[in-house]
Amino acid sequence: MLGAMQDWTMRVTRVIDHAAREAGAREIVSRWADGTETRTTWAGIRGDALKLAQALDAAGIEPGDRVASLAMNHSRHLVSWYGVAGMGGVLHTVNPRLFEDQLEYIVNHAEDRVLLYDAAFQPIVDRMRDRWPTVEHYVCYDPPAGSDVTGFEDWIAAHDGDYRWIEGDERDPCMLCYTSGTTGNPKGVLYEHRSTVLHALSGLQTSAFNFSPSSVMLPVVPMFHAASWGLPYAGAMAGIKFVFSAVNDPAVLDELMKREGVTDSAGVPTVWLAHFQFCDANNLELPKLRAATIGGSAAPRFMIERLMKNGTRVQHAWGMTETSPIGTVGGPTTDWDNLTFEEKVETTAKQGRPIFGVELRTIDLDDPTKVLPRDGETSGALQIRGPWIIKRYFKAEQDATDADGWFDTGDVGILHPDGTLQLTDRTKDVIKSGGEWISSVELENAAVGHPDVAEAAAVGMPHPKWDERPVLFVVRKEGATISDSDVIDYLKDKVAKWWLPDAVEFVDDIPHTATGKISKKDLRERFKDYTLEGAT
Amino acid sequence: MLGAMQDWTMRVTRVIDHAAREAGAREIVSRWADGTETRTTWAGIRGDALKLAQALDAAGIEPGDRVASLAMNHSRHLVSWYGVAGMGGVLHTVNPRLFEDQLEYIVNHAEDRVLLYDAAFQPIVDRMRDRWPTVEHYVCYDPPAGSDVTGFEDWIAAHDGDYRWIEGDERDPCMLCYTSGTTGNPKGVLYEHRSTVLHALSGLQTSAFNFSPSSVMLPVVPMFHAASWGLPYAGAMAGIKFVFSAVNDPAVLDELMKREGVTDSAGVPTVWLAHFQFCDANNLELPKLRAATIGGSAAPRFMIERLMKNGTRVQHAWGMTETSPIGTVGGPTTDWDNLTFEEKVETTAKQGRPIFGVELRTIDLDDPTKVLPRDGETSGALQIRGPWIIKRYFKAEQDATDADGWFDTGDVGILHPDGTLQLTDRTKDVIKSGGEWISSVELENAAVGHPDVAEAAAVGMPHPKWDERPVLFVVRKEGATISDSDVIDYLKDKVAKWWLPDAVEFVDDIPHTATGKISKKDLRERFKDYTLEGAT
Repeated sequence: MLGAMQDWTMRVTRVIDHAAREAGAREIVSRWADGTETRTTWAGIRGDALKLAQALDAAGIEPGDRVASLAMNHSRHLVSWYGVAGMGGVLHTVNPRLFEDQLEYIVNHAEDRVLLYDAAFQPIVDRMRDRWPTVEHYVCYDPPAGSDVTGFEDWIAAHDGDYRWIEGDERDPCMLCYTSGTTGNPKGVLYEHRSTVLHALSGLQTSAFNFSPSSVMLPVVPMFHAASWGLPYAGAMAGIKFVFSAVNDPAVLDELMKREGVTDSAGVPTVWLAHFQFCDANNLELPKLRAATIGGSAAPRFMIERLMKNGTRVQHAWGMTETSPIGTVGGPTTDWDNLTFEEKVETTAKQGRPIFGVELRTIDLDDPTKVLPRDGETSGALQIRGPWIIKRYFKAEQDATDADGWFDTGDVGILHPDGTLQLTDRTKDVIKSGGEWISSVELENAAVGHPDVAEAAAVGMPHPKWDERPVLFVVRKEGATISDSDVIDYLKDKVAKWWLPDAVEFVDDIPHTATGKISKKDLRERFKDYTLEGAT
Repeated sequence: MLGAMQDWTMRVTRVIDHAAREAGAREIVSRWADGTETRTTWAGIRGDALKLAQALDAAGIEPGDRVASLAMNHSRHLVSWYGVAGMGGVLHTVNPRLFEDQLEYIVNHAEDRVLLYDAAFQPIVDRMRDRWPTVEHYVCYDPPAGSDVTGFEDWIAAHDGDYRWIEGDERDPCMLCYTSGTTGNPKGVLYEHRSTVLHALSGLQTSAFNFSPSSVMLPVVPMFHAASWGLPYAGAMAGIKFVFSAVNDPAVLDELMKREGVTDSAGVPTVWLAHFQFCDANNLELPKLRAATIGGSAAPRFMIERLMKNGTRVQHAWGMTETSPIGTVGGPTTDWDNLTFEEKVETTAKQGRPIFGVELRTIDLDDPTKVLPRDGETSGALQIRGPWIIKRYFKAEQDATDADGWFDTGDVGILHPDGTLQLTDRTKDVIKSGGEWISSVELENAAVGHPDVAEAAAVGMPHPKWDERPVLFVVRKEGATISDSDVIDYLKDKVAKWWLPDAVEFVDDIPHTATGKISKKDLRERFKDYTLEGAT
């Protein structure tokens, strides 16, 4: 060696050690399902994580073993993130909203040996226990008084915290998260220590999460969704205060945000929508947040406008379980200060720009060998690569990437010259009509702008001449009487003429996936015998 | 493999690729020594770096070879940072202010094969050429018209840029920087690709450099000083605009800052002082910067106050060549919004907090086995470890760290419970009196608050009873007639009584090192026969 800088393995334990050392007294507040609240600190989280590591050791759990959590957001879940990683284990965050068959599949596929769960999910545990033969230990985070289940606090209290984190390779896994899987079985994504640390570090930057030491974050995005977007790691690196709520009732969130001085929050669009509705119904002002991260699906324009008018910076983000999940984040751009409010909204409505580490490209939907220009106009299949992007699914026989390392996201989007990503659809939902592509998402977004439309889903239906033509399924708002021609008329000045649906079908409901997205697969299944009028 | 995220070596080329891809049109402005200006972009920097890599290849330079630069700040120097690293080479940034013996030593020690230099340093090149036998190629960044030296632009113009960056291990070196060495020969610090990327990424965060896409940075800190604090890498990651000046004339800097919309700058305290004096003398307002990073030595309080009153966030930083260099940076703290202006100044006058990756501790000055508490009171020898901290100097026979990986910084400081570092002295300058420690720096800082004192240096002189007692060497301001008792009287309510110097000696000048710091070594040498009155 000619000379060298220090050896330093990139392990998740570095993150909690840093937080406990540099922001040891900074608070972590938890509002539990039963309405009680507890407070701890970064030093407290680390202390309990050390005890949990000992408890797992004592239970015979080995490095590499999977420990499942079936839980909402709270400090004990956070302790588990660091405690499991600290003993070399892999925390498998299970989405409690999955269907039973999926719950059975993933716990068995993961071979989880321990399950840490919220009392609220005791019914799931009781129903599934016999179908989860690999699970040897069940530990309840918040056991009801008098219950005979093993309680998390008691379980770790048997240990003294005198423990050294397990060292290992930085490419070792530390977390396992399954995709909700709109087709086929859920697939497991194994996050590594290294990928997790790099993802969080890049996410810290000013143009992404923008955490400063005075930040107070209430993440509404569940800890079982793609590592809660990496926030519990990034927040620890920056030493911020966290406020967790185990319930997503807007009344509870609103009260917590206002009382605890919350500056930042993060969630899917429906969370913000529910918050708006709650504040409006109760004649309350929205919390004065500094920043709101919105991801999971595209934020509607009125949501962005309303938050921005309230003085909140909107960080519109795109990613997926396979991307840890941050791919792009929208924050103020180069020319931000010179933009009108309308232009700022327009910019924010796109999905932001890749943070350092992430590389994007778009590919022609018809010719996968053709890389598309970043011209702000041409849309294509979105591909991604980088250190926190999946290479191979858990236990898969082959890589999920192509020969050059690109992972196909299944999304369709446009790349702009300044790096901005504008998502337009999913590859399997985009509608091919006469050799051209129609974005189902843009049709839906235009339709839900109508005050009488509660929800809309556009699906391509077979057509002998055009290949496919769009049909729009619409759920009317309660009491509304809107007709199909009303919808078409409304859309006329919002989309190209040849994009106008061939039919509008009113339905009582639209099916959703476990993560709350429209399930076009189920919709297509429901309407598999549908025939377009005039299409024979 | 159970599953995996993607392979992605942390190489410096990732940084320039990202900047060229995501912020390709963002400008890089250079103001040259002859007064001319040129403009390029991140895409242009990358394009030229590819050509430089080819030119180095063509000249027979191999991966691992050292390429020296003797240059101020400008775009061609920036091209060299990325071009040399891109072909696997190591850029050795030589400080042109070093003495000839040091210049001879380091170029020979580094075995530099190419020297890229500014025309302003042609006299150094002419004088040193015969003493630099390893240098095979001399290339001038800005050759005067009609000169017959090889010009950088011509040299790289012979190539087409059709080049693939050399891949390699992320622990390969990419840059070499020598300490100015107040004792013994200068020592080389080899920055690695990995350490450089991690350092820049952590430096990007809101509580450190806080770059956003709209940032426009004029770094006054030279590119030959500790990688210009990593700014050229962090700036590329964030896609900011850079404005470089090859001269540090405050008139030029002021004009550039105002004309180019500069939002951020970085430099040592004397740079800011010169800027204040220039603006005052010419009745100009200070530039309205968003942020000023000050490092290299401690910023005086009046400087912090004046910048903050001008609406500028002061990022008071601490580090050294051996630490890449960022150890700590001061930005707004947890309770910032609740502090009075005075308290904000007080907080900012300390050296900030370690960014993620850096770990600090203090050790008893008398008992090196004793780790001191982080109580905000106890001062001791400052030690550091982390991924961008030195392990072993270039060509050294042994590590520069102790068995636990700690590097002793030679600084003396206090750690506060919230992680804040407060530097008090250098280990070799702190004065031991009666078993207690007196900070020479605090004495000096107190003394220079007197309006008649231009500069002051405190040195411990041998004393038979107390071991050492402080003597204060003072340079009077021009025309001032201050006496030794005036100085002592002035200090009486500023330092503890037993800290008061036993003698004040007026001198015409105080010696400085090549980096502009007070050279106590030279001062001690000059006064080696000094005897304290009454000390026999």
